[in-house]
Amino acid sequence: MSKFAVLGYGVVGSGVVELFYKNREKIEEKAGHKMDVKYILDIRDFPGDPYEDKLVKSIDDILNDNEITAVAECMGGVEPAFTFTKQCLSKGISVSTSNKELVAAKGDILLELAKENNCNYFFEASVGGAIPIIRPLHKCLAANSISEVAGILNGTTNFILTKMINDGMKFDDALKLAQELGYAERNPEADVEGHDACRKICIISSLVYGKHVYPENVYTKGITDIKLEDVQIVNNWGGSIKLIAKVSKLDNGNILPTVMPMIVPFSNLMSRVDDVFNAVMVYGDGIDKTMFYGRGAGKLPTASAVLADVIESVKHDRTVFSQMWASSSDNSFVEDYKNLQAQMYFRTESGSKNEVTCIAGNAEFIYDENNQLAFLTDVISIKDAQNIADKLSANGIKIVSVIPVLGE
Amino acid sequence: MSKFAVLGYGVVGSGVVELFYKNREKIEEKAGHKMDVKYILDIRDFPGDPYEDKLVKSIDDILNDNEITAVAECMGGVEPAFTFTKQCLSKGISVSTSNKELVAAKGDILLELAKENNCNYFFEASVGGAIPIIRPLHKCLAANSISEVAGILNGTTNFILTKMINDGMKFDDALKLAQELGYAERNPEADVEGHDACRKICIISSLVYGKHVYPENVYTKGITDIKLEDVQIVNNWGGSIKLIAKVSKLDNGNILPTVMPMIVPFSNLMSRVDDVFNAVMVYGDGIDKTMFYGRGAGKLPTASAVLADVIESVKHDRTVFSQMWASSSDNSFVEDYKNLQAQMYFRTESGSKNEVTCIAGNAEFIYDENNQLAFLTDVISIKDAQNIADKLSANGIKIVSVIPVLGE
Repeated sequence: MSKFAVLGYGVVGSGVVELFYKNREKIEEKAGHKMDVKYILDIRDFPGDPYEDKLVKSIDDILNDNEITAVAECMGGVEPAFTFTKQCLSKGISVSTSNKELVAAKGDILLELAKENNCNYFFEASVGGAIPIIRPLHKCLAANSISEVAGILNGTTNFILTKMINDGMKFDDALKLAQELGYAERNPEADVEGHDACRKICIISSLVYGKHVYPENVYTKGITDIKLEDVQIVNNWGGSIKLIAKVSKLDNGNILPTVMPMIVPFSNLMSRVDDVFNAVMVYGDGIDKTMFYGRGAGKLPTASAVLADVIESVKHDRTVFSQMWASSSDNSFVEDYKNLQAQMYFRTESGSKNEVTCIAGNAEFIYDENNQLAFLTDVISIKDAQNIADKLSANGIKIVSVIPVLGE
Repeated sequence: MSKFAVLGYGVVGSGVVELFYKNREKIEEKAGHKMDVKYILDIRDFPGDPYEDKLVKSIDDILNDNEITAVAECMGGVEPAFTFTKQCLSKGISVSTSNKELVAAKGDILLELAKENNCNYFFEASVGGAIPIIRPLHKCLAANSISEVAGILNGTTNFILTKMINDGMKFDDALKLAQELGYAERNPEADVEGHDACRKICIISSLVYGKHVYPENVYTKGITDIKLEDVQIVNNWGGSIKLIAKVSKLDNGNILPTVMPMIVPFSNLMSRVDDVFNAVMVYGDGIDKTMFYGRGAGKLPTASAVLADVIESVKHDRTVFSQMWASSSDNSFVEDYKNLQAQMYFRTESGSKNEVTCIAGNAEFIYDENNQLAFLTDVISIKDAQNIADKLSANGIKIVSVIPVLGE
């Protein structure tokens, strides 16, 4: 019999408890032995809750009970989750978390602590919700040299962009609808400005390339200035604008993580990932490419990932070191985002095709109406794209939008 | 140091050796210790091959060497792979295989033998090539009650159907092109008649529902009689015809595995999976749905999956029982395919909308040209669809095609 505790009885925590009791028999079969939830930690009261007898208000109740071998941390935020997680790991209690903010900020420290205490810090639920991505990355794709990971890692922004693409809604209206449907917070900044996606690509980057990548070192641009006109021009051309969090391994050994709106051609399956769904495409020398798709958030989808980790926790009697990474004392291995190479989409007001071609070099014009041009360049760096933009401006051509294109 | 052997030095076996030496450092990091290929078993000679010194012709060389703890079986076919695998497992040597024919035919026996000898029989590469699907199914989705798995599990047929959809090619011409490009065998029967996809859905069904499902008990229909006209009508309506291998859990506790062409609406992401790519959609009570996509065959993609299993083999010192299933003495738990419930697509020659509606009940007409009708019914059973077809025929209405529709 393994007994575990759930920290935080909010959406995800209550989902963990609900899904555990719903599928307890199957879960115990997978774990190989009986399991039960012994404690639920929350400072709030839940009178009448079916699991009220398991509720405790102090982490000490959990830490002082030697029966507890695993914990599901579903609190969110850095503190007090960081302190509680450290306390658990120090006692050899494995922790499984959905807390992307904590993993992105302190993953290296917590993984090291887990190793020292011969237990595990698992975080499948911190990226892509229900989508199995962390375990496949370090186990199933272990024989690959991974060159790039690119994903749609935020459901809120993908919902907004889908509404703009499919229903011709403007950004503000789509955001309002997302808020009404409960997909966006009242303060939507973490989602629409890309911070949530940034934390997730930091976790993926750290795992894949073995060194902790901090959110503050990742260029992050949200979707707030995406214009409906660009969405429609790109859609007619054959692609979708998506908020893409990606990381590439460069020839110089550095890695280049970014979060920004990108044009995804229809030939890339991620262009078809709509609504609140997430997807992650992984490129490797063995697999070529493989994609993982599913619900990136929500009560039961996230709970499913947390519980899978809890099951693994109680099966393992030692640290799974293939999902570890090292601390990084400096960020010199993170390449300047201006060196990112991509085809670039420009939309301009005024200016002739001849003028544009003269400045931008090869240009594939995909729109020419209402005194506006839209065109795609060859693959260039963001630095080069900024030079082109500067020259166009200097020639009196107004730049409306510049958006990089994701490859296949 | 772990030393392993590769059985069969054909496409997949040579891919395993190539990918291992290419990424040896990363692989050893994931495994946690040094690794090497000690033997390659093949009855053929490979003069001048860089690994010629590792080639042996008798399995006894491998069985009698106590340094060998893992084997990659890349021979294909039931014999002699079955005998060799039994010999290895009996000695406690874990076996990782890409051999779907063997897993589908004898998986239960080999898994039991692995358990008895405290080692593992792994088969990630047997389904979906590079796509991580076996490990995610029994580990990452362990907290779910899985209601259905549906997949595009054969690259050859998906390539042919893609050519029919995108380029308007007829089946015979698309098959010829697939053969020219090396995607189809000279004798394409195993692919186009659905036998390959059938083996794969048997493996998935056995794993997910815990009892061995044999290919001969699964209704299997290939793509040889798919007509270009239906492909085009369905495409105009908003879907793609795909060869779908699926298995559902029914309310009566039975499972219903089938392989047949189905219409996949564009709202289901599998409709967009083109060319030789495979995809598997898994439906569960926690996750809702999640999809895995990638190359379903090929030298390095398949080798990537085999090697991931070999790495897991050398890390585990005991049997992973969550990926086991039991033998099945009868097939009473496999539901008759005629009870499969789906919307049905009919195409008829002659007959009026009134006549059709009178016989088929609710019908959504999606085509009415050249004295032909195409329509979709409500969700009915295949048995009901056959009754409708019989009644239409009895009324002098010629049935050209009947194709079930896959849900979202």
